[in-house]
Amino acid sequence: MIDPTDRGFTLADGLFETVLSEGGAFAHLDLHLARLAQGCAVLGLPAPGAGEVERRMEEALRAAGLAHARAAVRVSWSAGSGGRGLDRPETLSPTLAVTAAPAPIPSAPARLATAQVRRNDGSPASRLKTLAYLDNVLARREARARGCDEAVMLNTRGEVACAAAANLFWIRGERLFTPALGCGVLPGIVRGRLIAAAAELGIAVEEAAFGPADLAAAEAIFLTNSLIGLRPVAELDGKIVGDSRLVDLLLGALGIS
Amino acid sequence: MIDPTDRGFTLADGLFETVLSEGGAFAHLDLHLARLAQGCAVLGLPAPGAGEVERRMEEALRAAGLAHARAAVRVSWSAGSGGRGLDRPETLSPTLAVTAAPAPIPSAPARLATAQVRRNDGSPASRLKTLAYLDNVLARREARARGCDEAVMLNTRGEVACAAAANLFWIRGERLFTPALGCGVLPGIVRGRLIAAAAELGIAVEEAAFGPADLAAAEAIFLTNSLIGLRPVAELDGKIVGDSRLVDLLLGALGIS
Repeated sequence: MIDPTDRGFTLADGLFETVLSEGGAFAHLDLHLARLAQGCAVLGLPAPGAGEVERRMEEALRAAGLAHARAAVRVSWSAGSGGRGLDRPETLSPTLAVTAAPAPIPSAPARLATAQVRRNDGSPASRLKTLAYLDNVLARREARARGCDEAVMLNTRGEVACAAAANLFWIRGERLFTPALGCGVLPGIVRGRLIAAAAELGIAVEEAAFGPADLAAAEAIFLTNSLIGLRPVAELDGKIVGDSRLVDLLLGALGIS
Repeated sequence: MIDPTDRGFTLADGLFETVLSEGGAFAHLDLHLARLAQGCAVLGLPAPGAGEVERRMEEALRAAGLAHARAAVRVSWSAGSGGRGLDRPETLSPTLAVTAAPAPIPSAPARLATAQVRRNDGSPASRLKTLAYLDNVLARREARARGCDEAVMLNTRGEVACAAAANLFWIRGERLFTPALGCGVLPGIVRGRLIAAAAELGIAVEEAAFGPADLAAAEAIFLTNSLIGLRPVAELDGKIVGDSRLVDLLLGALGIS
């Protein structure tokens, strides 16, 4: 249980990772732990010990009866209790909280709606997986209110950033596009793997700043995150977009599923 | 204690208020509860019952041995546990957490540093007291790293918004200025009372969008929040700014201390 004075609860002062577990094997745990450690450096927090995190992940999986299932293991790491107001205490006692839940694969392509809530590219937190996820919750709520199941978030300059809980890619003219990290984008694990796999095949993913019109002109769109892998998009703001078979073909070629 | 799956902890999906208690009397509790209820409406959360909140506040004060002290009572209200990822559950079970801590009055005027971290005026959360306070924590850290004790936050358009944990006012040519709420500003309780009190004296507070140069040209600057009331500013980005006696005079005339 978390103390009600924990800075993770009171101020969202912390980070998290959500790791896919399949039959008790954690997918790309090294990459998740490296990203968590990098985030800690930005926020000025010590990083948790990798061994301790993995032990707690195994415990959480077992306690939830999910050791043999497809599961999401969430690792939260907060600044812990203490300090006066916004200022952290001199000596930190960070909190490690680990929980596990079933991770079903989405049964249908995503339907996207572009949210009014903007992503704050003016904060380093926009490139980290922090506990301050309220803007994403609000973006998702907007999408749900419009009958969709995921939001497209623009940054404060009006450029396309990401989905509320995934990175965004799209295809046009046999070219592959994704917003640059500088647009306020989380360096997703699957995003990074996809870009690397594409490079090995001689396909450069164009990482840059794009407007909503660029995304709307896509022939196909897909989402990536560690739990869904890759998910095709069927609709953007009420308009059918793209043929998901093109996505399937590309992804098969990239060796990522 | 808070469940580790509480959406307040995992996603900053909630709000808070910090109420000043002096000798067991809660200052402007009605205004705090009204602001909390307005925030709930924006986030799509039910509001807590006022009677229950007040009862829990009294309990927290007593438990902390602060019933006769100057204390900060923090009321946190989160979306509770449940849901899948960003989506809230169909039926919410919100969490009410109340804690109390001593609230000393700052002994010296504030020294401000303008932070690099920007305030996200592109989200309604910038006008609410939400659990997603990490950007403010980071802004405060920047200020501390530069030997100051509070940060000035600009919004994503580069306009002055607020301090990390206070509203900002300044004086120039016997005129009183503060950033408009649309700049990504919390409608502070003291901020509102000050504007109303000034109006009664025939002094219009100019609420608009201002740049850093406007703030830097101030003759005096002061901060407001519910715990500090009004706090003069002695320094902005290494430059001595203003004569706090001017602030004292104005505030005496306004009948706010």
